[in-house]
Amino acid sequence: MSTVNLGLIGYGYWGPNLVRNFHAVNNCNVKMVVDARQERLDLVTRNYPSVQCSTNADDILNNPDIDAVVIVTPVFAHYTLAKKALENGKHVLVEKPMTASVAEAEELIALAESKGLLLMVDHTFLYTGAVRKIKDLITDGTIGRVQYIDSTRINLGLFQPDINVLWDLAPHDISILNFLVDERPISVNATGVTHTNNNIENIAYLTLNYADGFIAHFNCSWTSPVKIRMMMIGGDKKMVVYNDIEPTEKVKIYDTGYAHKTDEDKKKILVDYRAGDVYVPKLNTVEALADMAKDFITCIIEKKEPVSNNRIGLDVVKILEASNESIKNKGKEVAIK
Amino acid sequence: MSTVNLGLIGYGYWGPNLVRNFHAVNNCNVKMVVDARQERLDLVTRNYPSVQCSTNADDILNNPDIDAVVIVTPVFAHYTLAKKALENGKHVLVEKPMTASVAEAEELIALAESKGLLLMVDHTFLYTGAVRKIKDLITDGTIGRVQYIDSTRINLGLFQPDINVLWDLAPHDISILNFLVDERPISVNATGVTHTNNNIENIAYLTLNYADGFIAHFNCSWTSPVKIRMMMIGGDKKMVVYNDIEPTEKVKIYDTGYAHKTDEDKKKILVDYRAGDVYVPKLNTVEALADMAKDFITCIIEKKEPVSNNRIGLDVVKILEASNESIKNKGKEVAIK
Amino acid sequence: MSTVNLGLIGYGYWGPNLVRNFHAVNNCNVKMVVDARQERLDLVTRNYPSVQCSTNADDILNNPDIDAVVIVTPVFAHYTLAKKALENGKHVLVEKPMTASVAEAEELIALAESKGLLLMVDHTFLYTGAVRKIKDLITDGTIGRVQYIDSTRINLGLFQPDINVLWDLAPHDISILNFLVDERPISVNATGVTHTNNNIENIAYLTLNYADGFIAHFNCSWTSPVKIRMMMIGGDKKMVVYNDIEPTEKVKIYDTGYAHKTDEDKKKILVDYRAGDVYVPKLNTVEALADMAKDFITCIIEKKEPVSNNRIGLDVVKILEASNESIKNKGKEVAIK
Amino acid sequence: MSTVNLGLIGYGYWGPNLVRNFHAVNNCNVKMVVDARQERLDLVTRNYPSVQCSTNADDILNNPDIDAVVIVTPVFAHYTLAKKALENGKHVLVEKPMTASVAEAEELIALAESKGLLLMVDHTFLYTGAVRKIKDLITDGTIGRVQYIDSTRINLGLFQPDINVLWDLAPHDISILNFLVDERPISVNATGVTHTNNNIENIAYLTLNYADGFIAHFNCSWTSPVKIRMMMIGGDKKMVVYNDIEPTEKVKIYDTGYAHKTDEDKKKILVDYRAGDVYVPKLNTVEALADMAKDFITCIIEKKEPVSNNRIGLDVVKILEASNESIKNKGKEVAIK
Repeated sequence: MSTVNLGLIGYGYWGPNLVRNFHAVNNCNVKMVVDARQERLDLVTRNYPSVQCSTNADDILNNPDIDAVVIVTPVFAHYTLAKKALENGKHVLVEKPMTASVAEAEELIALAESKGLLLMVDHTFLYTGAVRKIKDLITDGTIGRVQYIDSTRINLGLFQPDINVLWDLAPHDISILNFLVDERPISVNATGVTHTNNNIENIAYLTLNYADGFIAHFNCSWTSPVKIRMMMIGGDKKMVVYNDIEPTEKVKIYDTGYAHKTDEDKKKILVDYRAGDVYVPKLNTVEALADMAKDFITCIIEKKEPVSNNRIGLDVVKILEASNESIKNKGKEVAIK
Repeated sequence: MSTVNLGLIGYGYWGPNLVRNFHAVNNCNVKMVVDARQERLDLVTRNYPSVQCSTNADDILNNPDIDAVVIVTPVFAHYTLAKKALENGKHVLVEKPMTASVAEAEELIALAESKGLLLMVDHTFLYTGAVRKIKDLITDGTIGRVQYIDSTRINLGLFQPDINVLWDLAPHDISILNFLVDERPISVNATGVTHTNNNIENIAYLTLNYADGFIAHFNCSWTSPVKIRMMMIGGDKKMVVYNDIEPTEKVKIYDTGYAHKTDEDKKKILVDYRAGDVYVPKLNTVEALADMAKDFITCIIEKKEPVSNNRIGLDVVKILEASNESIKNKGKEVAIK
Repeated sequence: MSTVNLGLIGYGYWGPNLVRNFHAVNNCNVKMVVDARQERLDLVTRNYPSVQCSTNADDILNNPDIDAVVIVTPVFAHYTLAKKALENGKHVLVEKPMTASVAEAEELIALAESKGLLLMVDHTFLYTGAVRKIKDLITDGTIGRVQYIDSTRINLGLFQPDINVLWDLAPHDISILNFLVDERPISVNATGVTHTNNNIENIAYLTLNYADGFIAHFNCSWTSPVKIRMMMIGGDKKMVVYNDIEPTEKVKIYDTGYAHKTDEDKKKILVDYRAGDVYVPKLNTVEALADMAKDFITCIIEKKEPVSNNRIGLDVVKILEASNESIKNKGKEVAIK
Repeated sequence: MSTVNLGLIGYGYWGPNLVRNFHAVNNCNVKMVVDARQERLDLVTRNYPSVQCSTNADDILNNPDIDAVVIVTPVFAHYTLAKKALENGKHVLVEKPMTASVAEAEELIALAESKGLLLMVDHTFLYTGAVRKIKDLITDGTIGRVQYIDSTRINLGLFQPDINVLWDLAPHDISILNFLVDERPISVNATGVTHTNNNIENIAYLTLNYADGFIAHFNCSWTSPVKIRMMMIGGDKKMVVYNDIEPTEKVKIYDTGYAHKTDEDKKKILVDYRAGDVYVPKLNTVEALADMAKDFITCIIEKKEPVSNNRIGLDVVKILEASNESIKNKGKEVAIK
């Protein structure tokens, strides 16, 4: 295959960004966009006169000219649409989180493998210059043994009607976590609260427990007065602060002070609250979504595995599903299968 | 009593601050300082030639000329010293947390009451301009119904050898929480991790569960590359960000956007990540420790109850004790008695 | 006229933003784009298949179907192109600064008036929510008598080959200044330095002197390691900090402390470095360029005067021209005619 | 001489800091403090019972037991007091700025030299970890050829009754400048404005002109709603941002982007506003005033030259005196003699 013909289902908030980026990928032809709302399709026509439009997803799913389907719908519809696309021999890119349950995700992965098709999840953050740089710092030993990851992802957000705040925001953190470290959590604890009538948590806290001295913790909220996107990655040599709000200094690298052992070192920490120099690397600033789109198309054509592979996608759903059970059981530890 | 004669036990990191502030209180006479280390006492003599020094706590505890004792030792010694001081008829101010167990705290409170003595805990933050302002905003209805408190208190800190990071840092957050809201938690979940050989947690997360839609969560760490002291207080009318690192804008007050119901309002939130104006009140900038010291002396003389009363002190210990049990049981919900 | 047919000359860095915004204005039809570089025109065709392209400006200037011309070229070409457009009966929008000299600007204004055509300068900042809000605060008396405006506009920028840093960056500040206050400067002092071989200043400082106790000062640089866009507007009642880098708190309003007269007030300032509460108004977040484009089209159709009128454009050039003379004369005061 | 007996004149805002620091210097004995206000002397007695007090400066100046005098009075009194102290054979430390005129400063320097006495000016900033680090970065070639220094030192300050804002604040900037670079300015331009009835400028701008492509500019104000203490030091290899408000990241080192010559490099700057990695060195955090006090005492005993020598002190006064003349002449260039 030299050119991938693409159909995209769901032209709401995120869909236009995907169309714009796939439109710019060589070897990719955005052939059709489907959305139930005609006014959304009018926008497609205005900006991309050559792209066909339809209100019926089957016009993509059953279309023999379409090689790959991008699914940008609410989570509950991911499984049905992806399954049909795979059954019809089409490669699939699905928005995060992959599916609404582990069973669905596992079935889709098995189906894709049996058909020799690519099934990829859009965990866009894995393509950012910041996350790539942090991965490099771990791989080359700069950070040392990673001991904790702590992330705060809060803002005044739209309350989703069908999924809680962990399903909405934590996929970013969990996919980054699973990209950065090889270990997988053995269990989770999650707590949360709802301030609406629909019993969907708008604030939630998630702890991931590991076999060996590593811990991860995520703080997610739609009800924060300020927007915070801050992840700390603590190693025994260096610690990283990844502040995604910062325009030009997203990643800062600090010495791990508590590794220092002399009393003199300790006294300095009390006074300074810092152990050594700070280093702010320059990051690649290409748009992450452009790289994600390119990775999807390239992996279809060259039959390779994408950075954002479906094992990461599955692991995200496993952790989210366990978090649901933990919240229901008041924070009880729930094992990851 | 017109002048309170004071003895202070423990002249380490915090002791000098207390001596300096009590020295400046009218009607207070700092009579004696005790510390086991002669070089610390030499500092006292250098700065306060009129203050007597001793390496033996009994020289304060058994001294008939001393009316009140300030205990600034490691936590494990609080109970024994405070008990003896109360038995000898002396008023007591003890550093936070009050004691190492609920049983000890309850026994001291009972003893103080039976003797008609003041037993107060130094929860200094209750005397800051910031916390006082937030309390006013709650009392006068500005914030509305408080729905969550979320605090991050992390830095590159000295690992304490005897208490974990929650016992070290969370007393600040818990005392502020209990000062601001009348409800008390029904249970806690806590998780944590240790990166040293002594099994004392250097990172820990604490969730406090309440009967009715309110939640509190505290993130405490000695192993953060950056110092963060940020508490959010979310009400259904306004939300407050209390950033204690900010030199001049510690308290910011935001509209609670998700109370807005129209679609137009919702769309604006997506674009702006803010619902309305922000208001940054000017705060009283008197040193909190000075007010705390004055409160202790005034309440002794006028037989009144201090702002930082021992019920708040006891509640802090109750929550810390329950957090220990929850951490040991991998985050299990533990009821507060 | 019910629809304005538009031609745009210059599709470099800024041109695409203008085409995108005019494309979205009702009653506006972007008919033709001219650029000398075919690869730039290919971009136009890709994104706007219906727009005609040419490498020859005369195809716009002599085109009887075109009602209005947008000139987005280097400054030296503004005068010639605008003059021809006006002579041919076309309305003109020209990028800032209006022209390379006062004489050119005055000739264009006279020509436009004699022909009854609109001649407008794209001082985009006059259409931002921030500048509009500050104007309101002055108009409604909140700020009181304005006593100074101080602006820092520095970054690591591209050295322009034909104009110095004042001509490149200060038009933003000067147009905002002249929009906010009615008084006009009587003279300027300017100093600067060049670090290249072409004798074009890459750092420059500009002071504007006024008859009566008001002063304005602009700090412009292409050689700053950090990007700063900060303007302070000081009144005798309130002072405003307008920080254009801030994503959500661009405008902050402070009490003017030095108006307070008692010793107690003065002492507080020493301690606090702040005189009272701070207020951060919510701003209109519509893209300024969209409003500017709409203003141009509306004023053509309804024969009204735009916010960014050509008197402000002329005053900007007057100040820039005087600044050139002052820099050449080592900071000597140069009168504004 | 093995111990220096010290007398200090002026126990107002800054005096207590000096007494505290000299009190802690080995080989220094604070013998007497003079202030006209008895309530200030009561503070001395309370904190330092062994220090003698007097309301008459002659009790220090004529005291044969006193070796060195520290003058912490308003500027106008510096000359008379320092002259008498030197005439009586005493070493002198005088607050910044050294004197109210160049003639006075030159006379004092000549007198000190003829008597073999130390005459030092308290330019405290020269002893900070930040300024020392920047000096090292220049000396070791990291920064390359220094091309500009730009400083903003503004806040809501007390209006001084006798000196304008340049004399109050710019001595910090000018002494740092003269410490960092060897070249001296050939002329200055200064402009300013007053908003009070006493014709003393509360806002002023100062440009220092040099022979060879270097420029320095200082922005000083007592009427800023926010406190800014930011100096940029631009070299042809690296640029430094020295933000004195930052608690832990005062000095940041950036690549000098405009040294890069390829088009690809230039394009990156447009996108990123940054040319390379940023480096934040850890600084020495000893209190600068302690080092300044120690330097004064050590240089007396060891007959050495202090870091903050009186040539820097004289150069500061030369520039301030020239700035007065320039302000009076509406920004005219005034040569430095």
